[in-house]
Amino acid sequence: MVGANLRKLLIGKPLETEALPHQAVSKPVGLALFASDALSSTAYATEEILIILALAGLGKSVLGISIPIAIATSILLIIVTISYRQTIYAYPNGGGAYIVARDNLGEIPAQIAGSALLTDYILTVAVSITAGVAQITSGFPILLPYRVYLAVGIIVLMTVVNLRGVKESGRIFSVPTYFFLSMMFLTLGVGIFRALSGNLPSVTEVDALEVSVAQPLTLFLILRAFSSGSTALTGIEAISNGITAFKKPSSHNAAVTLVWLSSMLILLFLGITFLANQIGALPSETETIISQIGRTVYGENSILYLLTLVGTSLILLMAANTSFADFPRLAALEARDGFLPRQLTFRGSRLVFSWGIVVLALFSSVLVILADARTTRLIPLYAIGVFLSFTLSQSGMAIRFRKSGRLKPGEEQEGLETSLRYEPGWRYKMIISGFGAVCTGIVMIVFAVTKFTSGAWFTVLLIPSLSFLFLRVHRHYQTVAHNLSLAGVAVDVEPRGMHTIILVDDVHAETARLVNFAKSLSHDWRAVHIGIHPDKIETVRKKWQERIGEGELVVLDSPYRQLAEPLIDYINTIRSRDPDSYVHVIMGHLVMNSFWEQALHQNSAVIFNLALSHLDNVVVTNVPYQIRHLESEAHNDEAVPDSASEGEDAPEAVSEDDAVIVDAD
Amino acid sequence: MVGANLRKLLIGKPLETEALPHQAVSKPVGLALFASDALSSTAYATEEILIILALAGLGKSVLGISIPIAIATSILLIIVTISYRQTIYAYPNGGGAYIVARDNLGEIPAQIAGSALLTDYILTVAVSITAGVAQITSGFPILLPYRVYLAVGIIVLMTVVNLRGVKESGRIFSVPTYFFLSMMFLTLGVGIFRALSGNLPSVTEVDALEVSVAQPLTLFLILRAFSSGSTALTGIEAISNGITAFKKPSSHNAAVTLVWLSSMLILLFLGITFLANQIGALPSETETIISQIGRTVYGENSILYLLTLVGTSLILLMAANTSFADFPRLAALEARDGFLPRQLTFRGSRLVFSWGIVVLALFSSVLVILADARTTRLIPLYAIGVFLSFTLSQSGMAIRFRKSGRLKPGEEQEGLETSLRYEPGWRYKMIISGFGAVCTGIVMIVFAVTKFTSGAWFTVLLIPSLSFLFLRVHRHYQTVAHNLSLAGVAVDVEPRGMHTIILVDDVHAETARLVNFAKSLSHDWRAVHIGIHPDKIETVRKKWQERIGEGELVVLDSPYRQLAEPLIDYINTIRSRDPDSYVHVIMGHLVMNSFWEQALHQNSAVIFNLALSHLDNVVVTNVPYQIRHLESEAHNDEAVPDSASEGEDAPEAVSEDDAVIVDAD
Repeated sequence: MVGANLRKLLIGKPLETEALPHQAVSKPVGLALFASDALSSTAYATEEILIILALAGLGKSVLGISIPIAIATSILLIIVTISYRQTIYAYPNGGGAYIVARDNLGEIPAQIAGSALLTDYILTVAVSITAGVAQITSGFPILLPYRVYLAVGIIVLMTVVNLRGVKESGRIFSVPTYFFLSMMFLTLGVGIFRALSGNLPSVTEVDALEVSVAQPLTLFLILRAFSSGSTALTGIEAISNGITAFKKPSSHNAAVTLVWLSSMLILLFLGITFLANQIGALPSETETIISQIGRTVYGENSILYLLTLVGTSLILLMAANTSFADFPRLAALEARDGFLPRQLTFRGSRLVFSWGIVVLALFSSVLVILADARTTRLIPLYAIGVFLSFTLSQSGMAIRFRKSGRLKPGEEQEGLETSLRYEPGWRYKMIISGFGAVCTGIVMIVFAVTKFTSGAWFTVLLIPSLSFLFLRVHRHYQTVAHNLSLAGVAVDVEPRGMHTIILVDDVHAETARLVNFAKSLSHDWRAVHIGIHPDKIETVRKKWQERIGEGELVVLDSPYRQLAEPLIDYINTIRSRDPDSYVHVIMGHLVMNSFWEQALHQNSAVIFNLALSHLDNVVVTNVPYQIRHLESEAHNDEAVPDSASEGEDAPEAVSEDDAVIVDAD
Repeated sequence: MVGANLRKLLIGKPLETEALPHQAVSKPVGLALFASDALSSTAYATEEILIILALAGLGKSVLGISIPIAIATSILLIIVTISYRQTIYAYPNGGGAYIVARDNLGEIPAQIAGSALLTDYILTVAVSITAGVAQITSGFPILLPYRVYLAVGIIVLMTVVNLRGVKESGRIFSVPTYFFLSMMFLTLGVGIFRALSGNLPSVTEVDALEVSVAQPLTLFLILRAFSSGSTALTGIEAISNGITAFKKPSSHNAAVTLVWLSSMLILLFLGITFLANQIGALPSETETIISQIGRTVYGENSILYLLTLVGTSLILLMAANTSFADFPRLAALEARDGFLPRQLTFRGSRLVFSWGIVVLALFSSVLVILADARTTRLIPLYAIGVFLSFTLSQSGMAIRFRKSGRLKPGEEQEGLETSLRYEPGWRYKMIISGFGAVCTGIVMIVFAVTKFTSGAWFTVLLIPSLSFLFLRVHRHYQTVAHNLSLAGVAVDVEPRGMHTIILVDDVHAETARLVNFAKSLSHDWRAVHIGIHPDKIETVRKKWQERIGEGELVVLDSPYRQLAEPLIDYINTIRSRDPDSYVHVIMGHLVMNSFWEQALHQNSAVIFNLALSHLDNVVVTNVPYQIRHLESEAHNDEAVPDSASEGEDAPEAVSEDDAVIVDAD
C-alpha cells in the first residue's frame, strides 16, 4: 500500500492509451525539441580537442591546431547534413539509421545499426550529464568532490520525470535551447568584438592539465584530436527520426530545420574554438573551456558569466533527456521486430516505455560511476556508434537510390516501412549519400584506431556482441512462433480423457476445499500424499478416513525427502498407460496477507508447478485458500488455539502448508 | 545441469531419512565432541583480560590483576558446573536452556533464551574463527593483511563441509581436541617448570598495544576485565544439550564428562594466565598471548612452538564447527514449536538442516567483516547471550525443584519434554541452581554495563527484538492453524456450481490447447480476451472465428492497459450473481527450456495468479505449453518461418505470450 502510494506520488496516475499525443510543431519549436543533443556537444568538443593536443605541449602553436581541426569537422558536418536532407525526404515517416538499414541493407546491418545507436544513447546520457556537472562545478568548485553523486542524482531525477512521462510540450522545451543559444551567441559576439578591438585579455588562474613529458606532434595525435572533435556531430541525426512531429509539409519543414541546426552548430563550434585560442584557454580538470571563455569575456563576478554556465548546463541536461525518449523508442521498435525482449514494447501506466527508461538509467549510471564522472574518460567510447550508424544509414540510402533508378517514373515498389518510388536525379543523390557514407566510415575507423587503447576497444567489442545477442533473441522468438503457428495445422479440439489427482499434504480445511473442488468438476479423482516421514503418513491416513472418508488416498514414498520426483514418476506411469489423456493435478495454495507472512510458508506449490510444467499434457490447478486475520480474537490469547494446549489437532494444523516437517532432533 | 553437478560435487549425493545416525559415545570421545567450544575460549580469555587492564598501563602490577580475575572466573565456573550437573540428571534427553526455560518458565522466557543462544552461536563462529586466524597470523605475520579473507574463506569451507553433513565420527573429532590438550599441558608443564627453576626468560619483541593516556585502575575497569575473562565459560553448556549422545547410563557419563571438562578448563585458564604474567606477555594487535607463551617457552624456531599454534588454531576452528551443528538444531527445534520459519525444520538431501547452516554462515561472515576480523571487537557482543541463557536455565531448574518438592515421592507430573518427578533433596538442589542463576545473572549485568558502550548495546537490543519477532512468527502460525482447523467444523464436500473461463491473449496453438482442455473438462465455458489495443481486438475476434469457431469470446476493455483489473471486475460480477459456485480460470503458460528464454516472455500468468489468488472460490489452472527447439531446422534459416517474411500469420504468433503488445511508435 505504501509502495503503491509512493509510486503514484512519484510517477502519477495512470493514463489511457487514447491519450498518446499527436501534436505537430513549427520549425522553431522543432529546432528546440531536436537540437539539444547536437548543440550541446559544442560544450565539450573544443575542450576534448585541446586535451589531446595538450599531450604535445601547452604552447599556442600546438593548441592552435584546434582551429583547422574544427574547420575539418565543420566540413564533415556539411557533408552529413546534405546527405541526411535526402533521407528526410525519402522517409517522411521517420528514417532513423535502424529503419533505413533494415529497409535497404537487411537484418544483420540493421541490428548493427540498432546496437550502435542504443550504445550511443546510453553514452549520450553519461557524457552529457558529466559534462553538465563539469559546468556546474566550474562555477562552484566546492561541489567538485561530489560530482559522481551529482551526476547519478540527476540521472535518478531524470528517470522519475521520464517515468511520469514528459508531455513533449515544445514551448517549455524551447526555453533552455533558446536560452543557451542566446547566451552563447552573446558570449561569442562580445568576445569576438573585444578580441577584434584588441582588449580581450588572456585567461588567468587556470589549473591546467600537467603534461610530464610532451609527446611529439604526430599525424596520429592530430587525427586523435580530430576524432575527439568529431563528437560535435553527435545528435545531428535526431531530426531525421522525428519528422512526423513537424507541421505539414513535414519533410520540408524538417529539412529546413536541419539546415538551421547545422549552421548554428558550425557557428558555435568554430566560434568557441576561435575564442578559446584567443584567450589562450587551457584544458583543465577543474574548469571547462566554456567557463574559461565566459570568465574572460565577462569577468569573474559578472552575472552574464554565471548565466552562460547555467545555459550550458541546461542544454547538456536537455541532451541527456533526449536519450530518455530515443532509447526506449528504438528499443521498443527493435522489440516489436523481435530482436529485443518483448517487455520493452510495454507502455507503462503513464504511456511511456518504462523498461527502456529503467535500463537506460541503469547502464548510464554504471558508466558515470566507472568513469568517476569525468567526460574525458567517456569520450573514447562515444561517437563510434554514431558514426557507424551514419555510415550504415547513408550506405542504405545510396543503395536505395540505386534501386530507385531501376524503376520507371511513377512506378512504386512495396517496402517494409516506406514504399520505394522512382527518384528523379537518383544518380546524383546516390553519389551524395555514398560520399557521406565513405567520409563518416573513414572517421569511424580513424576514431576506432586512434582511441582504441584509451577505451574505444570496449565499444568495438560491444557493438558486434550486442548485434549477435539481438539476432539470438530473434531466433528464439522465431522458434516460439514456429511452435505456436496454426498455419496449415488442423486445430484439434476433440475432448480427451482426464486423470484427476489431488495433492494432499495433510488433512485440514484446505484439503476439504480441494476435495470439494475436485468433486465439483465431476470427474473421477484420486488423492496422492508424498510420504516423507513414516509417522506423518499414518496420521494423514487416519485423518483422511475420519474427516474426508471418501475417495482413494495413494501414498508415494519419498525416502530422500524429495517432493516433486515421486509425483513425476507416478504421473509418468499414468501417462505411459494412457498417453492421450490429460493428467490434471489439483493442489492447494495458502494465501497470506503480506509478503512476510507468505515467506513463513514453504511454498511447495512453486516447486510442483515448476517441475510439472515440463511434462506434456500435465495441467496444474492451484486452489487458493485465503488465511484471514483473527480480528476480534487476535487480541485475546484465550480464543486462539495454542499449538501447545489444544491437544492433538492444532500442531498438525499449524504445519499444513509445509510439505516437509521432520522432527527436529 | 552444471549447477546440479557442481552441487553434487560439493554437497554429495542424497541420503535416505533412515540414515540418521544413532551412535553412542564413550566419556573420552564425548569430551572431545563437546569440549572444543569451552576449551577453545582459553585461547583468548586471558588475552582479553590483559587488553582491558592495559588501558591502565602495561606495568606488572596492573597486568598482574589478571591472576585474581582468573581465579574469580574459575570459582564462577565451579558454581555453574555444579548447577549444570543437576540439569543433566533432570533432563536425560538433553536440557538446553531453551528446553528448560520452555518447560519451567513459559513461552516468553523460552524465546528469550532461544534468541540469546542463537545470537551466541553466531558469535561463537565469528569469535572462534577470528581468534583461530589470529593464531595463524601470529605464526605467519605475512598473512596479517589477509585475515578477513582467511576468516571468511574458512566460514565458506565450513559451510560446504556442514552442508555435506559431518558424520559425527567421534574418533576423528577427538584428534584436534586431544592434540590441543597435549600441546597446551606440555607447554604449561615446561613453562611452569622453567619458571620455578628460574630460567624462563621474559618475552621479547612484542608489538604491544599503545596506550596514549593511561586510565586510572578503577573498580569499573577491573569488572570490565573480569567480564572479558568470563568468556572462558562459553561452551560449558554444550554437554547438557548432547546427553543422549553418551553411552548408557548417559546422564551419569555426561555428568562425569562435565566435571572433567571444567577441571581441565580451570587448569588451562589459570595456567595460561599465570605463565602470561611470568613471561610479562603484553597484549598486541599482531601476536596472541598463546604465541608469546609458546615462543618464550620453546624458542622462536622450535617445532613445538609451531605445533602449539597449530593445536590452538585447530581447537578454535573445531569450536566454530560445533556451532554449525548447534545453531541449526536449535533453530529447527524453535521452528518445530512454531517460533521460527518452518523451513528451518527441513532436512536437506544430506539430512542436515540446510537453511540453518546457511543463515549461520551468512550472519557470522557479516560480523567478521564488520569487525575487520579482530577478536577484541567481537568480545563485547559475545557472552551476554550465554550468561543470559545460563541465568534462565538455572532459574528454570530452581523453579522445577521447588515444584518437585510439592509432589509425593514416586508421583509424576506430565511435562512438555520431560515429566516432573519428586526429587530427593530438592531444597538443597533448588538453592544450588538458584545461587548459580544469581551469580551468572550478576555477571551478565556487569558485562552489559561495563561493555555497553563498546558493543554490548547491540546484543542488549538484539535479544529482546529477536524474542519479539519469534513471538510474532508464532502468532502467525497460530492464526493459520485456527483458519485451517477442522475441529468442530462439519466438512462440506458437496459439489458446487462451476463457471469456466478461458483466458485468451491471441489465437494460436496454445489457445487450441486451452480450448481442448476446457472441453475435456465437460463444463460450459467461455473465452475472455483482455482488450488493450483496438486493432488487436479485431484480429483476435477474426482469428477466433476462423480457427476455433465455437464457444463465446468475451472482450473486456482495458483502456489503462491493465491486465488483472478488468478480469477481476468480470469475475466479481459472476460471483455476485452466483456466490456459491466456483469460478475456474484456465490460462496458458509457455514453457521454455532455459531461464534466459523464459525471461524473454512477459509472464502474464504470474500477474494473473497473484491477483486472482486473493479472490475466494476463484481457482486458477495453468495449462503449460512446451516450446521445443527446432532441431533439424534450427540450423537452416529457410525452414524457420520468419516474422518478416511469412505475411500475416507469423508476427502475431511471435507475440502470443506477451499479453501487451502496443505499437512502438
